[in-house]
Amino acid sequence: MVRERGLIDGHLENWIAGLPKGPLFEPMAYLLGLPAKRVRPVLALMGCELFGGKAEDVLDEAIGIELFHNFTLMHDDIMDASPLRRGQPTVHAKWNVNTAILSGDAMLVKAYQLMGADPHVLATFNRYALEVCEGQQHDMDFEHRNSVTLVEYKEMIRLKTAVLLSCALRVGACKARASVEDQDWIGAFGENLGLAFQLRDDVLDAFGNSAVTGKQQGGDLRNGKKTWLMIRALERSNEVGDGRLVTELNKVVDQRDVDAMIQLLRELGVEQEAETEVARLEAAAFAALDAVEVAENRKKPLRELAQALQERKS
Amino acid sequence: MVRERGLIDGHLENWIAGLPKGPLFEPMAYLLGLPAKRVRPVLALMGCELFGGKAEDVLDEAIGIELFHNFTLMHDDIMDASPLRRGQPTVHAKWNVNTAILSGDAMLVKAYQLMGADPHVLATFNRYALEVCEGQQHDMDFEHRNSVTLVEYKEMIRLKTAVLLSCALRVGACKARASVEDQDWIGAFGENLGLAFQLRDDVLDAFGNSAVTGKQQGGDLRNGKKTWLMIRALERSNEVGDGRLVTELNKVVDQRDVDAMIQLLRELGVEQEAETEVARLEAAAFAALDAVEVAENRKKPLRELAQALQERKS
Repeated sequence: MVRERGLIDGHLENWIAGLPKGPLFEPMAYLLGLPAKRVRPVLALMGCELFGGKAEDVLDEAIGIELFHNFTLMHDDIMDASPLRRGQPTVHAKWNVNTAILSGDAMLVKAYQLMGADPHVLATFNRYALEVCEGQQHDMDFEHRNSVTLVEYKEMIRLKTAVLLSCALRVGACKARASVEDQDWIGAFGENLGLAFQLRDDVLDAFGNSAVTGKQQGGDLRNGKKTWLMIRALERSNEVGDGRLVTELNKVVDQRDVDAMIQLLRELGVEQEAETEVARLEAAAFAALDAVEVAENRKKPLRELAQALQERKS
Repeated sequence: MVRERGLIDGHLENWIAGLPKGPLFEPMAYLLGLPAKRVRPVLALMGCELFGGKAEDVLDEAIGIELFHNFTLMHDDIMDASPLRRGQPTVHAKWNVNTAILSGDAMLVKAYQLMGADPHVLATFNRYALEVCEGQQHDMDFEHRNSVTLVEYKEMIRLKTAVLLSCALRVGACKARASVEDQDWIGAFGENLGLAFQLRDDVLDAFGNSAVTGKQQGGDLRNGKKTWLMIRALERSNEVGDGRLVTELNKVVDQRDVDAMIQLLRELGVEQEAETEVARLEAAAFAALDAVEVAENRKKPLRELAQALQERKS
C-alpha cells in the first residue's frame, strides 16, 4: 500500500504541476494539494494489481477518480455552505461561489479526460458518478425532512460514499481484464468496506476515546446530526416510549448534555446494534474478497487494508 | 434540416420521457423542454451526413451535446444571477441554487453517458468541453475589469459559443469516419459560422428593425453590455477623442439616449466595421466548407443553413 501511495502522490503532483495558471485551474491545485489519504486512487491501483495488472497502467484513471471525488467536495461544500475542508478554507470561501461552481465543472471534465477510452471503464465510471450525485441529492432532501428512516439513510451513505470506493476497485479490476463476476465481487468488497468505514466513524464519534480520535467526543450528537446512531436512537426511543433524547435535542446546541446522550444510546442498545452492524458489513466485505477467483497471496494487501480499517481507533 | 430537426426532437423527447422522477432529474426535463432551436444537435447530424454517415447513428452523441449545452446554461444562469431563460424562470429561480448546481452536475455526467465509447469522439468532446468552461471563466473575469480588448472579447466568444458548434460538426464527421483534415475543415466552418452568428446578433440588436427582431432596439447598448460593438465603439471614441459615448454610459441606465448611441456608432464607423467583420467570418466559413473533400451536392444542406443565417433579419 505504501508503494501505491507513493505512485499516486508522484503522479498527482506531476498532474497538478502541469495545470495552466488562472482562476479556472488554481482552485483544483489548491483542493488537491490539501493533505488527504488518497484512499480511492490507492484502491484503484490495488484493484488492478489484485488481478495481475500493473499499478502504472491505471494511474491516469486512479487520478481521474480522485479528481472526481474532489469535484464533488468542491460543489458539496457550496451546497452545505461549509467554510472549512480539511482544516483549510473551502474553495468558495477562499475564492467565491461562482469560481467554485466553474472550477468544479472543469474538474469533472478533467476527470473524464483521465478516464481513458476503454468503454468498460467509462461505463463503470459513468454509472457510479451518477449514483454519487443521487447520494448528494438524498442528503439535501433529508435536511428538509423531519424524519429519515434507517433504510433511507443507509442508501444515502451507500450512494454518496461507498459506491466510489467500489468504483475505484472495479476500474482497477477492469483495466486488468478481470472477469465480470470478479469485478462484481471486488465491487461488493469496496461497497461493504465503505459502509463499514462510515458507520465506524459514527461509532468513534460517540464512543471513541477523544484522546485517540483527536475530536471532541459526541460532536455529531451534540449538533443533532442525522447519523445512523441518531436515527436508530430516535427509533428506539420511540419504540420504548423514552422522551429523553428528544428533550435533549429540543435544547439549544450548547445546553445539550452530551454525556447523558451517549449514556442514553448505550441504554437503548444502540451502541451494541451499531457494533453488530459494523461487524456484519466487515464480514460481508471479507466474504466478497474471499469469493474473488485469484490466488490468496494476491489478496493479502487488500485483506490487510480492511483489517487495519477494522481495528482503527481513530 | 427539417428531417434532422424531427429526428432530434423525437429522440430528445424519448430521452426526457425516460428520466427518473425526483429533484435531480426534473430540472433537466424542464430546461430541455423549453423551446429551443437545437442548432448544435442538428449540426452533429448534418456533419455526419456530409461524410456519408447516417443521421440515426449519431443521435445519442447529438443529444449528448445538447445536454452539455443545457448544463452550461443551468450553471451560467446561477453565475450570472439570471432570473429568466427563454422567457421562463431559470432552474435556480424555479427550484434553488443547490438544486441547479447538482442537477447541472448530473446533466454533465448524463451527457458523457451519451457520448459513446469512440475514443476520437470522446477526445474531441473533452477538448471542447474544457474550452467552453474557459470561455465562461473569461466572461466572468471581464465583469471585474474596466477594459477588455476586442481580441480578448473575440477569444471569449469563440470559446464560450463558437467552439461548441465546431464540436457538434466534428463529432458528426468523426462518427462518419471523415479524415482528420476534413474534420478540421468542418470544425473551422462551424467556428466561423458561430462567430458570425454572435456578431450578427450584436448588429441586429443595435441596427435591426425591432418590428422584425421582436426586441427593443439597442437593448444591449442601453445596458452598457460589453459587446463587440461597444468595445470597438469605445476604442474608436478614444482614438478620435470623442467623449459622447462615455458620457452616455456614465448616466443611469434609464436616462441613456439609445437613439443617440446608435447614431454615434454609425458616425464612428462601427456599424460598417461590424458588417465587414461579419462578412469576413461568413466568407471564412464558406471557404472552409469549400475545402471539405466531398461531392458538392452533399454540402448543399450546410451551405443553405449558412446562407439562411447570413440573410436573417432577426
